[in-house]
Amino acid sequence: MHNVKVGICQFKVEIDKQKGLTRIAKLISDLVNAGAQIVVLPEMFNCPYEQDLFSQYAEVEGQGETLQLLSDLAAKLQCYIVAGSIPEQDQDQIYNTAFVFNKAGSIIAKHRKVHLFDINIPGQIRFQESAVLTAGDQVTTFTTEYGRFGVVICYDLRFPEIFRLMVDQGVAGVFIPAAFNMTTGPAHWDTLLRARAIDNQLFVVAVSPARDNTAKYVAYGHSMVVSPWGEVIWEAGAEEASHVVVLENEQLKEARERLPVLRHRRHDLYNLSLVNKGS
Amino acid sequence: MHNVKVGICQFKVEIDKQKGLTRIAKLISDLVNAGAQIVVLPEMFNCPYEQDLFSQYAEVEGQGETLQLLSDLAAKLQCYIVAGSIPEQDQDQIYNTAFVFNKAGSIIAKHRKVHLFDINIPGQIRFQESAVLTAGDQVTTFTTEYGRFGVVICYDLRFPEIFRLMVDQGVAGVFIPAAFNMTTGPAHWDTLLRARAIDNQLFVVAVSPARDNTAKYVAYGHSMVVSPWGEVIWEAGAEEASHVVVLENEQLKEARERLPVLRHRRHDLYNLSLVNKGS
Repeated sequence: MHNVKVGICQFKVEIDKQKGLTRIAKLISDLVNAGAQIVVLPEMFNCPYEQDLFSQYAEVEGQGETLQLLSDLAAKLQCYIVAGSIPEQDQDQIYNTAFVFNKAGSIIAKHRKVHLFDINIPGQIRFQESAVLTAGDQVTTFTTEYGRFGVVICYDLRFPEIFRLMVDQGVAGVFIPAAFNMTTGPAHWDTLLRARAIDNQLFVVAVSPARDNTAKYVAYGHSMVVSPWGEVIWEAGAEEASHVVVLENEQLKEARERLPVLRHRRHDLYNLSLVNKGS
Repeated sequence: MHNVKVGICQFKVEIDKQKGLTRIAKLISDLVNAGAQIVVLPEMFNCPYEQDLFSQYAEVEGQGETLQLLSDLAAKLQCYIVAGSIPEQDQDQIYNTAFVFNKAGSIIAKHRKVHLFDINIPGQIRFQESAVLTAGDQVTTFTTEYGRFGVVICYDLRFPEIFRLMVDQGVAGVFIPAAFNMTTGPAHWDTLLRARAIDNQLFVVAVSPARDNTAKYVAYGHSMVVSPWGEVIWEAGAEEASHVVVLENEQLKEARERLPVLRHRRHDLYNLSLVNKGS
């Protein structure tokens, strides 16, 4: 990889979609002015995280106002945008989808959340994405002039398999738009982010909405960038935060030389592979 | 699983093997008297962790003094012993092996470290197990009246694949004799232990030698028991420590009901399997 400046954008999601988009345009523009070459947005950044609202805020690829705005911004500002996620309508299905725009404003990748989040902790939290969303069925990586990267969304973080599949496609880092909550956030967020970075010796860039205690689903916040050695390079608090972090090639190289765990995998003993959908 | 009391035994490894064994017998006896039903010892507990010494301290299964002592103790005290690891001689090969004894004193499982530890951090640490040891090629689980458990050794911890394979064999917990060092310990130890517990929703019982600053290889210590929700139930410091921890079925059940990640794996999208050595 080459050194790359990543802009992390942790903000409160607006109920008024248009108002939210106007604000997001300003935040992205400010990050690029501060040097960001890739800007990353949180999960469901254009829609409150409520399963009843996903269809109302959903957009069809090639038609939606959010996607059009981000395409225009990427081209105008000459930056990549990992557009967190939005509810994506495709025929009768709704997906939780992250679109990736290049500097020409073209969509070069899209990740549909592969693992849907169903949780039921009596007295604390209940949420069932599978009731309204359809799961994706692709591992998503893309190439830039800075290197190859992967994208997963929130609950995908809990599945080490998908990180192994991405690292086998040569990624130097993984972007994780996410919205852990006030139960899973304090319990698991930093541990899982750091473990994925350590296991796969890659950068982890996780971006959450800012915490909004008036929302039905309260996001944990704490957007975080982790080095391939597992160090927390930068971490937000619960509040809104915009920050540019440099991902340095030297850190990647050093971690992989020090302790070559990826080469130490026992491919002769176990095998992890993508299932061939065609077979 | 059924509730089970696990005795963790973190001690300094003796250069004088016989002196060490006398001491270990007393420590195990004390833990069983304190209620332990399964006692767990650290990695290379009968041998200083120096690659030049492994062959000198190694034992052949069925012949060694360490193995005979532990068999006698298990039968006499009516406990299981997860005998951390010792250098095991088998023909011309030496393995880093954990033997598991049942209450009759019989060996019911043995795990030969599958991933050999080769590290090279200039100015900090260099160690190369592969220069003197042979790697095992089995995933190791065993059944007791308390439930099914797995065993891995130290560097195996860095490979999420082997935990998935154990959990697919139905384990409720994994015992991890280990000896992280003063570089990898502070950087990775607790994060990886907690992540394996969280990902696989099982108990993790990791047992290290106590720290000995006069040793050539200085172990980190910090033996640790983690719940299936990722909580640290008990943690040692750097010094010697013996402790009995109850692994409660309710904690396992609750974690797996709250957030059924194991069921949410996308077996239709990716497949992790043991390689069939015969094919």
